[in-house]
Amino acid sequence: MKTLIKGGTVVTAIDTVEADVLVDGEAVVALAAPGSHSWEDDADKVIDASGKLVVPGGIDPHTHMELPFGGTYASDTFETGSRAAAWGGTTTMVDFAVQVKGETMMDGYTNWMEKAAGNCAVDYGFHMIAGDINESSLKEMEQLVDLGVTSFKLFMAYPGVLYSDDGDILRAMQTAAGLDAMIMMHAENGIAIDVLREQAIARGETDPVYHSLTRPAITESEATHRAIVLSELAGVHLYVVHMSAKEAVAEIAEARDRGLPVFAETCPQYLFLSVEDHVSKPGFEGAKYVCSTPIRLRSEGHQEALWNGLATNDLQVVSTDHCPFCMDDHPTLGMQKKLGLGDFTAIPNGLPGVEDRYQLMYHGGVVGGRIDVNRWVEICSTAAAKMFGLYPKKGTIAVGSDADIVIFDPNAKWTKSVEQHHMFVDYSVYEGLEVQGKVETVMLRGKVIVDGDEYVGEKGDGQYLKRDTVSVHH
Amino acid sequence: MKTLIKGGTVVTAIDTVEADVLVDGEAVVALAAPGSHSWEDDADKVIDASGKLVVPGGIDPHTHMELPFGGTYASDTFETGSRAAAWGGTTTMVDFAVQVKGETMMDGYTNWMEKAAGNCAVDYGFHMIAGDINESSLKEMEQLVDLGVTSFKLFMAYPGVLYSDDGDILRAMQTAAGLDAMIMMHAENGIAIDVLREQAIARGETDPVYHSLTRPAITESEATHRAIVLSELAGVHLYVVHMSAKEAVAEIAEARDRGLPVFAETCPQYLFLSVEDHVSKPGFEGAKYVCSTPIRLRSEGHQEALWNGLATNDLQVVSTDHCPFCMDDHPTLGMQKKLGLGDFTAIPNGLPGVEDRYQLMYHGGVVGGRIDVNRWVEICSTAAAKMFGLYPKKGTIAVGSDADIVIFDPNAKWTKSVEQHHMFVDYSVYEGLEVQGKVETVMLRGKVIVDGDEYVGEKGDGQYLKRDTVSVHH
Amino acid sequence: MKTLIKGGTVVTAIDTVEADVLVDGEAVVALAAPGSHSWEDDADKVIDASGKLVVPGGIDPHTHMELPFGGTYASDTFETGSRAAAWGGTTTMVDFAVQVKGETMMDGYTNWMEKAAGNCAVDYGFHMIAGDINESSLKEMEQLVDLGVTSFKLFMAYPGVLYSDDGDILRAMQTAAGLDAMIMMHAENGIAIDVLREQAIARGETDPVYHSLTRPAITESEATHRAIVLSELAGVHLYVVHMSAKEAVAEIAEARDRGLPVFAETCPQYLFLSVEDHVSKPGFEGAKYVCSTPIRLRSEGHQEALWNGLATNDLQVVSTDHCPFCMDDHPTLGMQKKLGLGDFTAIPNGLPGVEDRYQLMYHGGVVGGRIDVNRWVEICSTAAAKMFGLYPKKGTIAVGSDADIVIFDPNAKWTKSVEQHHMFVDYSVYEGLEVQGKVETVMLRGKVIVDGDEYVGEKGDGQYLKRDTVSVHH
Amino acid sequence: MKTLIKGGTVVTAIDTVEADVLVDGEAVVALAAPGSHSWEDDADKVIDASGKLVVPGGIDPHTHMELPFGGTYASDTFETGSRAAAWGGTTTMVDFAVQVKGETMMDGYTNWMEKAAGNCAVDYGFHMIAGDINESSLKEMEQLVDLGVTSFKLFMAYPGVLYSDDGDILRAMQTAAGLDAMIMMHAENGIAIDVLREQAIARGETDPVYHSLTRPAITESEATHRAIVLSELAGVHLYVVHMSAKEAVAEIAEARDRGLPVFAETCPQYLFLSVEDHVSKPGFEGAKYVCSTPIRLRSEGHQEALWNGLATNDLQVVSTDHCPFCMDDHPTLGMQKKLGLGDFTAIPNGLPGVEDRYQLMYHGGVVGGRIDVNRWVEICSTAAAKMFGLYPKKGTIAVGSDADIVIFDPNAKWTKSVEQHHMFVDYSVYEGLEVQGKVETVMLRGKVIVDGDEYVGEKGDGQYLKRDTVSVHH
Repeated sequence: MKTLIKGGTVVTAIDTVEADVLVDGEAVVALAAPGSHSWEDDADKVIDASGKLVVPGGIDPHTHMELPFGGTYASDTFETGSRAAAWGGTTTMVDFAVQVKGETMMDGYTNWMEKAAGNCAVDYGFHMIAGDINESSLKEMEQLVDLGVTSFKLFMAYPGVLYSDDGDILRAMQTAAGLDAMIMMHAENGIAIDVLREQAIARGETDPVYHSLTRPAITESEATHRAIVLSELAGVHLYVVHMSAKEAVAEIAEARDRGLPVFAETCPQYLFLSVEDHVSKPGFEGAKYVCSTPIRLRSEGHQEALWNGLATNDLQVVSTDHCPFCMDDHPTLGMQKKLGLGDFTAIPNGLPGVEDRYQLMYHGGVVGGRIDVNRWVEICSTAAAKMFGLYPKKGTIAVGSDADIVIFDPNAKWTKSVEQHHMFVDYSVYEGLEVQGKVETVMLRGKVIVDGDEYVGEKGDGQYLKRDTVSVHH
Repeated sequence: MKTLIKGGTVVTAIDTVEADVLVDGEAVVALAAPGSHSWEDDADKVIDASGKLVVPGGIDPHTHMELPFGGTYASDTFETGSRAAAWGGTTTMVDFAVQVKGETMMDGYTNWMEKAAGNCAVDYGFHMIAGDINESSLKEMEQLVDLGVTSFKLFMAYPGVLYSDDGDILRAMQTAAGLDAMIMMHAENGIAIDVLREQAIARGETDPVYHSLTRPAITESEATHRAIVLSELAGVHLYVVHMSAKEAVAEIAEARDRGLPVFAETCPQYLFLSVEDHVSKPGFEGAKYVCSTPIRLRSEGHQEALWNGLATNDLQVVSTDHCPFCMDDHPTLGMQKKLGLGDFTAIPNGLPGVEDRYQLMYHGGVVGGRIDVNRWVEICSTAAAKMFGLYPKKGTIAVGSDADIVIFDPNAKWTKSVEQHHMFVDYSVYEGLEVQGKVETVMLRGKVIVDGDEYVGEKGDGQYLKRDTVSVHH
Repeated sequence: MKTLIKGGTVVTAIDTVEADVLVDGEAVVALAAPGSHSWEDDADKVIDASGKLVVPGGIDPHTHMELPFGGTYASDTFETGSRAAAWGGTTTMVDFAVQVKGETMMDGYTNWMEKAAGNCAVDYGFHMIAGDINESSLKEMEQLVDLGVTSFKLFMAYPGVLYSDDGDILRAMQTAAGLDAMIMMHAENGIAIDVLREQAIARGETDPVYHSLTRPAITESEATHRAIVLSELAGVHLYVVHMSAKEAVAEIAEARDRGLPVFAETCPQYLFLSVEDHVSKPGFEGAKYVCSTPIRLRSEGHQEALWNGLATNDLQVVSTDHCPFCMDDHPTLGMQKKLGLGDFTAIPNGLPGVEDRYQLMYHGGVVGGRIDVNRWVEICSTAAAKMFGLYPKKGTIAVGSDADIVIFDPNAKWTKSVEQHHMFVDYSVYEGLEVQGKVETVMLRGKVIVDGDEYVGEKGDGQYLKRDTVSVHH
Repeated sequence: MKTLIKGGTVVTAIDTVEADVLVDGEAVVALAAPGSHSWEDDADKVIDASGKLVVPGGIDPHTHMELPFGGTYASDTFETGSRAAAWGGTTTMVDFAVQVKGETMMDGYTNWMEKAAGNCAVDYGFHMIAGDINESSLKEMEQLVDLGVTSFKLFMAYPGVLYSDDGDILRAMQTAAGLDAMIMMHAENGIAIDVLREQAIARGETDPVYHSLTRPAITESEATHRAIVLSELAGVHLYVVHMSAKEAVAEIAEARDRGLPVFAETCPQYLFLSVEDHVSKPGFEGAKYVCSTPIRLRSEGHQEALWNGLATNDLQVVSTDHCPFCMDDHPTLGMQKKLGLGDFTAIPNGLPGVEDRYQLMYHGGVVGGRIDVNRWVEICSTAAAKMFGLYPKKGTIAVGSDADIVIFDPNAKWTKSVEQHHMFVDYSVYEGLEVQGKVETVMLRGKVIVDGDEYVGEKGDGQYLKRDTVSVHH
């Protein structure tokens, strides 16, 4: 099966080229100057990309399908969530297998492999949430790297649940360093935050907005600083997830200037949402925007600092931390966000985004004049591919790479809404936002799975990705 | 004329791909998976690149052929120097036209266009050294941008010669900002340095080493800081040339973290040479290494900081500042370095390097484990192309780009020496250095001009490049 | 003649003590626990200081009496200005002798000694404004140090007038270093500012507010950074005058953290006034607040940074830069501020303050809760004494020190106004400001010169102070 | 009882004055110009201080007499240790009462009050080591403040022993903030350090030097950074004890530049000792120098940074952390340092110093040219007095202050040795060091307790000091 994508502008993280792309089977086999080769005759299928951008499929390295959290589960299954990802132009997601206290890492791996198997619309891999660091689980890390799980996430937040203390973190980092694996960090001082939460509740401050207000920016930057120091002791690659505080970006920038292999991602919600405009909405509306790290105060200047970090490469990746919970009752799981009515500490942490990211970053980044198209591709696809051992199969359009390709209309204008999206959740955090730039066609390893607004793939198109170790130095 | 480069590993600033490259006329027209297309049959010429890297031709954005300096001229003409560049894998050089006091910028442009015309082995463009900022020359800047001279170099060093004061600099920056042109800066506090030089001579400190010692690192970082502040006032893109001090790198890093469009280059001599090992050699030997900014003290840690800056992208480009002067008499120009016997202030500033750069950076960077091959290509070619309006014609191997291609043997080992090099100068600053990685074949717009160690091009192969304005944001 | 000051609270830069103070002749001869000694019997005069603070006379190390500037002279003579100083609790002022281009430093010294001789109400010394650095004037510096002029002020502002270039600055710094003298610096990039001024005028921006707007904060911090670097090259003590920009304070803080002997002062006008509230007043009102460095934008946060700098000792001294010009015609000198009607660049730079400082700093600092009484005494008296070689005669109340003593009522409330002040100028920049804390009695070397609101001294009470070199290390 | 100290040079933190000092009973009642008053006739005792410095008695705010640690007790009792303090010119010590897990703070207070009662040669107070933070102990803090224990020490080191987690620290800080009390912090990341210690032992690295090597500098600076952030959240005064790492000093400097009320002390051992010269001595000799934070690598530049911090006031206090253990068996307590033969983790942490400090800081600081005499007095006495609520009784020589006075010979030269010192421990860490400056006479509240090298006081001369809260703002 050969497909010719003709007449488009191929954009990679470095190049912007007028070129025809020839796909054979699952891979890109050739690129050529438009009209220079008569591939059309030979192709099974020809897609006209005139006036469109031809970009690598998005890579979302931070999703939580079906995640158990706070007595319920994230509302998107691997099936519904991965299909929404496809609609949004994301052809690879890296989800988190979870080792809970008392389990082995292999338990977590097996459980999550089973949940995903046969259900995904896009290719997928797993990071391992290391929820129980001990002699035995440290030994399992090598086995997991062999299975393609080459990154391990630790939590400085959520004491008593997923929290690791600095000793466990250091041990896990040392082990990861020996395996050339990546350490991912949820960097918030959860121990201090828990004191603030308890005191807020004691004062009767129970509304959703207090979720944000009891997680001050310096609790994130403190943990980021500490994670960097521990990673320096261990000599390991560190990747700080869902960064939202300008003070934390400054810690990353300082470490990177010193040459440490330290990285960080942010998410669209931190670039577009704020306490003032969203979390502090009256009644329980703010619960829609409850996630951790929290949405922060616009007046403190975090959004500008995050955009600047993306432009300056102090932030390397935009992920989603997709972890949706319904505001109204979930059809099978019952109460979700409402578990926290009257007590913000019981609101499940998380919000939907896997479908929004690639398009939203074009709108805010490229249309907004903050980054160019190459950088857009880099932060939404290429950087994550290199960071998480998916390159060169994923993250680029090049000879030999997987034909994960998005045809993107840079001029289309539309309005974001729960009515329009496909994630299994009953609200959009971007409801009513008018954006420019739209995914038109999505190809996964040579097969078109989204055509216009129609999903034309099949359940189980997505394959498990055995990932390599990190292939970027800085 | 079609050429097929087959079996090699194509390396760009982002991708590393096994691919055949099809060149038609002057451009790359296609890349394809090895063996996927029977282009061989159709090709006029087939080059076997098996086991080799296929990389974009190098871009050296800082050369000074035939530069008048201190009573003599740089010893390489456009003919000899550009041919040496070719041998070293550099297919584009951007030299500096000079407006001296009392001339118009157009005078400088015309003079240098004439010197280069018909003589160059590689493609070339010009920056303009703005040596006389006034109402009238500021107006000329637009005209020069139209002619493809889109970058203007100013000197904070060399009072009374090329020096501009902060007012002239600010005016030139403001004008450049309006034209979207780049300001290049020789950042040394020449006024302060002149005091130190005069005092050294008065104390009888006349040896070449005092050239380095009278230009302390903080005179470079001070000027860098000042140039950044002036560029911030003007809102202009700033590119600091030949950075050699760690304190200056820190200034650039800090400005970039804040999001300012500030850039800097370093040169191989600052990464490989030191006062201790080179400039302080007995007798007049140190004169070989006299250049400005100076070679610095190894013990102060500048080399590590510069390598770190290249890895972290606080430094974006490696150029050569090629400006050779003979130690013994030049056949036609007479005394060169020896003009400064007994008075280091009379030694012409500059050293040879245009042939060494691409290979040396592979050796020190990639073989040395400091950067990967993509970053090597980026700092030696791609970044300069984007910085100076040459992209996408230059700086990459992509469909539609100029077929400026180097076939590079990553394993060849050899020894650098004046015996081996082709620059018109009677010494090598890297004499005896054993290196790994060698240019094998060089193609300029589809024509092979270096084949093995043999130059097979013709005088005048190189064309003038009308450059666009800067196409990189950060 | 013996005077006993009894029942007060003696405050020095370090101690707060209930003590009687015995003055004999010109000096303090003893302090004792209240009532412990029957000095009353023996005293010629007894002053009851119950409920009052007994503090060292203020030292204002930055005044400009009768300064020629922009075609006129500062409106206060040594007689009127020094008397106003006395009313304000300042018993020592250090004014600036001026060497203009073409003169020797000794010319400047002689001229200013003559202006002051026999006219001053308070003790006085001189700094030397080095307006013509050359071989001969550098040699004069030693002579001036011997005459008690141990500090030399240079200007990075005012090109063509008092401006020195970096070479002259470096030479003067090196010479001062050898003499253990202090370099004072007006740190603004005057060359860049002149471009901005000229461009503003060309755009028709002629109102007083453009004086502030054409001197952006980073032109001050740039010059501060440069002055620090030059002082580091020379190994000299550096004191930056009238600091008003938060970015400049940051430069000082960074240098001091590194251990450099770098110091800075600010003035009350920068702590209390702003562009928004004062300089941008309609019509020509803003001219009242035209001084350099300029009053800055409140919204940029400079005031908070300056107060913080005073609290953290990143700023060590509060002076006044007293340099008044009348808004209406001066009785003998004619037009002053009005010289700049229709052209802000012709407004004489400066404003009155010598009488306001000590009291205002108590109000804003101590009553405002930003500093304690010891720090108030330190920044208004002790620090300047040590910085400028006046200690231990001046700057403290201790056995053997000059009996320059202010009895200060910490609770008195009053309103500042031109009606109330004694400076020879027709407006107050603090008109209508309600303050707490008032000078009640002022003693100069044992003689009461202000009693209540009445001046009871005589012309010529003040003596010339032959100053020693700096006696503070950091 | 009246004593006249005549002819000396009285030095305080700000003044250096030739003055006679009159002591009546326990307090200073007057200072006078030499010979101005005929106090001699009336005095019970006259001390001739000609040619000597008359300085406030030293204040050592960090001692551990009889501290239980690692299965033994510090070898100095309150009796022997406080007498050694007196010999060293220290007239006030603040020791640490210890609340261990399971006890109330009042238990700790009572125990330590009993240990000290009637035994001390110098005045003493207590900080409280908060070893068990809970609802009930937090409530006790107010009671302790009322009893004069106004500072609370927490440990980020020593997990399982005195360690508090960040939540306990935050709670204690918030409570302290409400009481205007000071939080003292042992800032080392003990959790991470324990991992490194365990791994070192597992590798067979058991010698004393590994004590230092398993506590890298960044584990101290990390904890310092974290303590600062937590103090910022709580709005409390923070005082970091025994700082030894240059990176930690940088954290303090940065926080202070921002205006936070953050303070730190260092100790002589960090200024004079190093891993290279001391801890790495062959055999078990290095155990003499085992303390925490550890003695660090000279080559890393910590000593210079600490001296610079003292000069720049980024460090405010020099204490001793006096906590001696015998190398050979203690007469009654048996094995001390030797408990750690073959296992550095079992070496009791601590070394002697209470007698050395005041003299050593004169030698290293004043004679060494790093600070002046006023700063010497400030860091050894005045700053601690203000920091810990002892001022104005302690920390100065002023009318009304306690007559705690040291007569110090600035020229005496002698050699430090265990033979010469009076601390109850069988070695000196400064053995053989030749120093200049010697305590000659020590007066405690008007009573001479050390005269020449003879102790002339009585057991129990020292009184308990009910301390006030902090009286310094920055």
